[in-house]
Amino acid sequence: MTISETRYSRVAVVGAGTIGASWAALFLAHGLHVTVSDPRPDLEEYVTGQLTALTPTLAALGPPTEALTARLEFEPDVEKAVAEAEVVQESGPDDLNLKQELFARLEAATRPGTLLLSSTSGIRATDFTARMADPGRVAVGHPFNPPHLIPLVEIVPGEHTEAATLEDAAAFYRQVGKQPLILRREIPGFVANRLQSALFREAVHLVTTGVVSLEDLDTIVTSSIGLRWAAGGPFLTFNLGGGPGGFEHFLKHLGPGMEMLWQLLGKPSFDEATIATLSAQEREAYGDRTYDQLGAARDRDQLALMAALRNAN
Amino acid sequence: MTISETRYSRVAVVGAGTIGASWAALFLAHGLHVTVSDPRPDLEEYVTGQLTALTPTLAALGPPTEALTARLEFEPDVEKAVAEAEVVQESGPDDLNLKQELFARLEAATRPGTLLLSSTSGIRATDFTARMADPGRVAVGHPFNPPHLIPLVEIVPGEHTEAATLEDAAAFYRQVGKQPLILRREIPGFVANRLQSALFREAVHLVTTGVVSLEDLDTIVTSSIGLRWAAGGPFLTFNLGGGPGGFEHFLKHLGPGMEMLWQLLGKPSFDEATIATLSAQEREAYGDRTYDQLGAARDRDQLALMAALRNAN
Repeated sequence: MTISETRYSRVAVVGAGTIGASWAALFLAHGLHVTVSDPRPDLEEYVTGQLTALTPTLAALGPPTEALTARLEFEPDVEKAVAEAEVVQESGPDDLNLKQELFARLEAATRPGTLLLSSTSGIRATDFTARMADPGRVAVGHPFNPPHLIPLVEIVPGEHTEAATLEDAAAFYRQVGKQPLILRREIPGFVANRLQSALFREAVHLVTTGVVSLEDLDTIVTSSIGLRWAAGGPFLTFNLGGGPGGFEHFLKHLGPGMEMLWQLLGKPSFDEATIATLSAQEREAYGDRTYDQLGAARDRDQLALMAALRNAN
Repeated sequence: MTISETRYSRVAVVGAGTIGASWAALFLAHGLHVTVSDPRPDLEEYVTGQLTALTPTLAALGPPTEALTARLEFEPDVEKAVAEAEVVQESGPDDLNLKQELFARLEAATRPGTLLLSSTSGIRATDFTARMADPGRVAVGHPFNPPHLIPLVEIVPGEHTEAATLEDAAAFYRQVGKQPLILRREIPGFVANRLQSALFREAVHLVTTGVVSLEDLDTIVTSSIGLRWAAGGPFLTFNLGGGPGGFEHFLKHLGPGMEMLWQLLGKPSFDEATIATLSAQEREAYGDRTYDQLGAARDRDQLALMAALRNAN
């Protein structure tokens, strides 16, 4: 982990759904002044409720969580909310028209150097900045849900994003304890969601064709690949799995078998039968616990894993 | 974790490469008497060397590691090696002819109730048991490498495997601290390797098309999906990611976007250019450390993660 410098102190969170509220909690816990803007009538109630709900997790992650609301303001008027911000983290609906209009307004209402970052997982910066005069200080800053917990933030440039914007965004996310990675270019789904969806596709195939139950597939992942990939990514894993002969040697030997397996991978679709099978097996696997119980158990394990990695390094 | 009963006490490990030696170390650490058989001239030297090398990892996992060799025997003659065994864990070369001949000999040389389990990752039990009179007590017991460390063992029936064999194999693997999962039928690559290869396919695509560097892709995985899937499998993750509206609701909303992404996933092949790109980026990412240094760091993290999960549960 790079030592982070304290460079930013004032952030606006535009859009206060689950993602925006999670960002706000994280920023507050790292000492930033946060202004949250959203037209929702229950804005203050919703965000303070989320803050209370997320505080135990934030506290377990390390940063101080006393008096978080002392540095928190609410401002439904987006122009006023962003006027003094050094960074805007936009987390509004993934609607191209809405986002295009919003970013034109953000450009007009912010000071020239303000970083404009979008949590979008689905729209290219090149597209949602189309109505801006100068989209150079805009980038995607896509968290892996939930932002206050999972380290990754994918920073994705649009065609007009300046290199300095990417570096500044990385510095900002490091300051709030995240692991930012800068992608070299835009691509639908970015990296993490594409990788996730590739594995999930085969998972759906294996369960719906009756090779393995949904619950057993989840256990297979947690007791093998998941553990492995929490300690080292897929390339390092294969490198080490191949023995000291080297990665090139390994790829040449692995290649033909892997390519054959690729040809056999399933191509499911989310038709009614697939959704019915998966839903029924999900209820069978997890239906004896509530959503909150399952989430709490997962978050407890998640925090324990992250603490273990921090201590080991 | 189910409380395991002590049911088996005498095991033969047939085939002493990396996998066989790792199995032997695990079985010894869990108090079993182990006879290792392999025609290699350096059999005793190789296995005892591996035992010494693996002992620190085994000790960190929990079981006692004193005097492991007191319950260890070597017997190059496979018929003699398996004569008294309650379980045979076969880990020889993945060659259909060799395995067919070997399993016919194992059938003749073992007592009728002996479990015959193969570590194969590539050959169906239905195929490698073709020369046996009664293949009912044979199954695949496929570890995720290395067997002494990673919990998963996939138990895969052949067409003639008896149901009791699968349950007995699961009891055996639980006795030695593993997480066994019984697949419902044979499929090339079983489950974990198919899932792994599906994600790896897209990983190769994203690196070779220049979206992200190999090193950054590994970091993206460890800081998002890997952490997630060590705490909960892909179905539980999506269930919890979808909010309390339920998995069916989530699938219906997620489906179209996910299917669109599936259509965009890459289809790389291991041609010379791909291997050259991956090898060069692997050297750039990890070339400053030796194979042993990388492996030691990964194993240290791996053990810390597994200890954290044990303590959290």
